[in-house]
Amino acid sequence: MTERIKGVLSPVLTPFKSGYGPDAERFINHCRWLLANDVSLAVFGTNSEANSLSESERADLLDRLVDAGIDPRRLMPGTGCCSLTETVRLTSQAVKLGCAGVLMLPPFYYKGVTDEGLYRSFAETIERVGDKRLRIYLYHIPPVAQVGISLGLINRLLKAYPETIAGMKDSSGDWNNTKAVLDQFSKAGFDVFVGSETFLLANMRNGGVGAISATANVNPAKIAALHREWASGDADAMQGSLDSVRKIFAQLPMIAAMKRAVAHWKKDEDWSRVRPPLVEIAPRESTTLIEALQAAGFDMPGI
Amino acid sequence: MTERIKGVLSPVLTPFKSGYGPDAERFINHCRWLLANDVSLAVFGTNSEANSLSESERADLLDRLVDAGIDPRRLMPGTGCCSLTETVRLTSQAVKLGCAGVLMLPPFYYKGVTDEGLYRSFAETIERVGDKRLRIYLYHIPPVAQVGISLGLINRLLKAYPETIAGMKDSSGDWNNTKAVLDQFSKAGFDVFVGSETFLLANMRNGGVGAISATANVNPAKIAALHREWASGDADAMQGSLDSVRKIFAQLPMIAAMKRAVAHWKKDEDWSRVRPPLVEIAPRESTTLIEALQAAGFDMPGI
Repeated sequence: MTERIKGVLSPVLTPFKSGYGPDAERFINHCRWLLANDVSLAVFGTNSEANSLSESERADLLDRLVDAGIDPRRLMPGTGCCSLTETVRLTSQAVKLGCAGVLMLPPFYYKGVTDEGLYRSFAETIERVGDKRLRIYLYHIPPVAQVGISLGLINRLLKAYPETIAGMKDSSGDWNNTKAVLDQFSKAGFDVFVGSETFLLANMRNGGVGAISATANVNPAKIAALHREWASGDADAMQGSLDSVRKIFAQLPMIAAMKRAVAHWKKDEDWSRVRPPLVEIAPRESTTLIEALQAAGFDMPGI
Repeated sequence: MTERIKGVLSPVLTPFKSGYGPDAERFINHCRWLLANDVSLAVFGTNSEANSLSESERADLLDRLVDAGIDPRRLMPGTGCCSLTETVRLTSQAVKLGCAGVLMLPPFYYKGVTDEGLYRSFAETIERVGDKRLRIYLYHIPPVAQVGISLGLINRLLKAYPETIAGMKDSSGDWNNTKAVLDQFSKAGFDVFVGSETFLLANMRNGGVGAISATANVNPAKIAALHREWASGDADAMQGSLDSVRKIFAQLPMIAAMKRAVAHWKKDEDWSRVRPPLVEIAPRESTTLIEALQAAGFDMPGI
């Protein structure tokens, strides 16, 4: 069996051309910069505006990434859609391309669905993809998807598909939930990624394997360094430094703010564009953001 | 200009074959039965499990409906997806086929989005479809989509696109919201459909034009009768009778319960199948449902 993906991943920002078409060239360049900073690629996450992309736009971008020579063992594309049909197709593509795993949202339109319904959804996907190489990371993000992944559901899926259900991303923002998942499942080889570097140190100290975090798009090197050096004496100070940068971005709509920072440090205005229903941050907010980042000594070397 | 669609529409239940593929034949038959009962077709609504269908599954079903001779002037397909790309394609198809209008959800994955972002989403769709025949009915269903349509957004869209923005479906379940929309916009020709027949009489008495209601799938004739006869002396009694039937279905997960009723009265077990993440109602619930409906004198003549 190939080694599991661990460490820090970025839900890679998706740049758009004027007219809102995905910009594959800028996307590939950003992926290369992240890899060079020791950050792997959770393309098509929430912060990628992936849920504003069609199935075919995702499929095309993924093909182009791999065609461009990006190592698929560093890729964990988001493939969970509202429809079983689309989830199966995108997941199959990822497996065929040799991706390390997929990050799978539950179907998120219908609310108040049962664990039985979600179980059927994941199980049916696994059966249809029908490939032993498939590694699923369950995506728990109740603040956005509203539909979450309960401990009972993890338990049932792990029992039925112990090789395939490889781990989860916990973006609940609730450390008590992450801790409960770690305590119950991490010893069985269930790999827990936190959804924000705020919890990275705590996660590593409790048996987790890394973080899949928005701000790894803009602050990759330092987040990856904490993952490598979490057992060192400097870890708490490193965590504090990461938190202060994240705090600056978190005061604004994160996706637009991160794109603004990339546009600024890359001197490439096209990078600031977001697809509706998101909107760019206002010019005044932009000035405040850049000034606050500069005052904190933030930089994006090599971007 | 062609006449606007009004009256009672059903978010048509989508039957599935074993293996969860959409069953076009049963779908077309159900549409014909609804039309024969004076109910038009809001195919691909929430109760159609449309958000569990892929774009191509919806596109194919719509083509097949029209190929089967269903009058497109009786059709208001749901075309609002999370991605602009898919919303534009499905909406264009509906317009080209001559559909009376489309029922358009806002993009619903990202939460806490601004009215500016939603405005851009609808405006961009209208510009891209670029067809004067397009009639959009805004779909406000905050209990499920979480992302709603505010009065301010309606106002802005109506001013920019007075011909295209034809009305809305209010599934908030909040009569105060419906009343506010009616008071502010119905005189300008903005057609308000309530999302449940519970509010049909109140809607008609306050300038609305009809209902797009789940239970019009199972109780079409009587709901359509109240729409025709809302000004008669029997209207309040008719409303009471509709409410008592709806109440029976609403005690259970509605979609599965309605499919169960169709399966029972049609003597066609395949009709009870739902696609994950939904699940069928349990056998005991099924028995209780059918008994309660029979006790209330419910029937589905001609199904």
